[in-house]
Amino acid sequence: MSDPSAERHVLVLAGGRGERLWPWSRPERPKQLLPLAGGGRTLLAATLERALALAQPEQIVVLTARDLVAATRRECPAGVRVLGEPVARNTAAAIGAIAHLIGGERTLAVMPADHLIEDRAAFRRDLEYAFAQAAREQTLVTLGIKPTSPETNLGYIRRGAPVTDRVYRVAGFKEKPDRARAEEFLRTGEYRWNAGIFVWRARVFLDALEAHRPLLARGLGTLRGVKAADFEGALERVFPDLESISVDYAVLERAPNVLMVEASFDWDDLGSWSAWARRQPHDPRGNVVVGNVVPIECDECVLVGEGRATTAALGLKRMIVVHSDGDTLVCPLDGSDRVRQVSEAARARGRGDGR
Amino acid sequence: MSDPSAERHVLVLAGGRGERLWPWSRPERPKQLLPLAGGGRTLLAATLERALALAQPEQIVVLTARDLVAATRRECPAGVRVLGEPVARNTAAAIGAIAHLIGGERTLAVMPADHLIEDRAAFRRDLEYAFAQAAREQTLVTLGIKPTSPETNLGYIRRGAPVTDRVYRVAGFKEKPDRARAEEFLRTGEYRWNAGIFVWRARVFLDALEAHRPLLARGLGTLRGVKAADFEGALERVFPDLESISVDYAVLERAPNVLMVEASFDWDDLGSWSAWARRQPHDPRGNVVVGNVVPIECDECVLVGEGRATTAALGLKRMIVVHSDGDTLVCPLDGSDRVRQVSEAARARGRGDGR
Repeated sequence: MSDPSAERHVLVLAGGRGERLWPWSRPERPKQLLPLAGGGRTLLAATLERALALAQPEQIVVLTARDLVAATRRECPAGVRVLGEPVARNTAAAIGAIAHLIGGERTLAVMPADHLIEDRAAFRRDLEYAFAQAAREQTLVTLGIKPTSPETNLGYIRRGAPVTDRVYRVAGFKEKPDRARAEEFLRTGEYRWNAGIFVWRARVFLDALEAHRPLLARGLGTLRGVKAADFEGALERVFPDLESISVDYAVLERAPNVLMVEASFDWDDLGSWSAWARRQPHDPRGNVVVGNVVPIECDECVLVGEGRATTAALGLKRMIVVHSDGDTLVCPLDGSDRVRQVSEAARARGRGDGR
Repeated sequence: MSDPSAERHVLVLAGGRGERLWPWSRPERPKQLLPLAGGGRTLLAATLERALALAQPEQIVVLTARDLVAATRRECPAGVRVLGEPVARNTAAAIGAIAHLIGGERTLAVMPADHLIEDRAAFRRDLEYAFAQAAREQTLVTLGIKPTSPETNLGYIRRGAPVTDRVYRVAGFKEKPDRARAEEFLRTGEYRWNAGIFVWRARVFLDALEAHRPLLARGLGTLRGVKAADFEGALERVFPDLESISVDYAVLERAPNVLMVEASFDWDDLGSWSAWARRQPHDPRGNVVVGNVVPIECDECVLVGEGRATTAALGLKRMIVVHSDGDTLVCPLDGSDRVRQVSEAARARGRGDGR
């Protein structure tokens, strides 16, 4: 370890609580733990395969909720470290904590555990390139995905002045636009999806946090120099009092030294039933039918049954019907962005988690 | 028993297999065994209460499928006889068999077990009146219900020449008209719903069967004189070879001596989810919500959940969502007449019965 900046670390953020694919995903079985990556693999397992192309297992940390540590660990190869957060405090605190754990000059790639990326070679190439940018400059690097549809559920990055091949300054971030603006973003060609994939040196990130969110930086400061063995205990003491804010709001939207690397890999956040369904085989009437379903005269529907229970759909058009673990969701196909409301309501009624 | 014609018998037809309220009703728990009659009573129990106002328990026979005998007996007061059919052979064979059991000059009222009638006093009055017509004349008496909506799922009786107060000759039967014809039927004021409630002397019915369906009459003939104790065994031998045909097609549409008594009682066959829902309390947005349902921005929906399972409906309009015994039905409110297709399809796949 003569040159710590050459040492690459990966932080996999696996704290999602699985609200948008309810009732398939659930607080105790969030999206990253569902076998959505093809070949029966979970999204988390596939994410770790990609991470292992970038770093040694011992340099990979998976951060999740404490009650998901055991289930998360089952998806991780030997050597990968799984840490449980005592409470959820969003991405700025999570990344800041791990920046302290790995230490100053080392470079850290951050990636969500629950996205689908199939072109592993392109992912590796792009991340290598991002590592190189982050090592060379005092910069925060974010990956930008070329949008393929006017999604209203994602954050967009506006491309600024070009710096070098496929690298741009960032002209701004736009969180979840309405449909008209999303279509405009697509037309201009200047916007990229924010996939939550970042690369930076630990010190550069902590400096930016200090500059733009000093209170949060101070709260995290007590984690500096804590030994790895004591780290989870330290999180326990420190986390509850930290501000809960995304890294985009806390740092990226404010810092002047953010660069965007244009990604060449495919990407899907599978962030809704309709997003999931787009990737599934369709029957001649445009339905996605999975499991024990009786579809009669249905068109362009997403119909998911389970086990021996019969899920019958009669005369439906552009509807989603999902039955999983005894619970049932019915909504229009175009309303699948709002499924989070359902899982929140189900949870508020003391259901939906851990029956 | 000096005047056997004064002796009144009641046959309750309880052979329905529960297809139209699937998945609540099922082959092993058909509509007549569901607590739909108010006060937690089954429709069958309420039917028997009405029958007991007309006849002694010992003069009441309930005919059902053999596998439903035990469940049916639980709903019956002491003294009422429950008989199981070895196979279903529709109403003509069922009524003919029981006509042989009770014998020639006695009068028999026939009524389905799975209809909702709330005005018991009016029902009793009307049936007394029908008994009087049937005793006096060589006639087959059918009850006609004044229609309140253009149902396409029911049979209609066209009123003919008046005979006496509220008694008419029958000008014809019309089975399940399309919407336009049903509306026309309502407009003319000349049509009544066929509720499947009949009164006649056993001999008069058997004579009519002999005249219009001689083969079926002959098949049933071996039941003549069979002792009550041996009757179920005789059904076993005779039933499988009998023609399966409704009493309407076999006799009523052909016989010249049919009279219609206009009913003054309320009547509902609860023959679909939308029919059931019309009688339930509605929320301010017009939804019927029963059980563990999370309705979010729904209008004019029928939403039925069950137990601890969450049934979530998001942004639906005029839809039916029913979750019962693990199975789920989703269809438009206006499509509830077609639910039978679903239960048939579910059964054809070896599901839906007796899991």
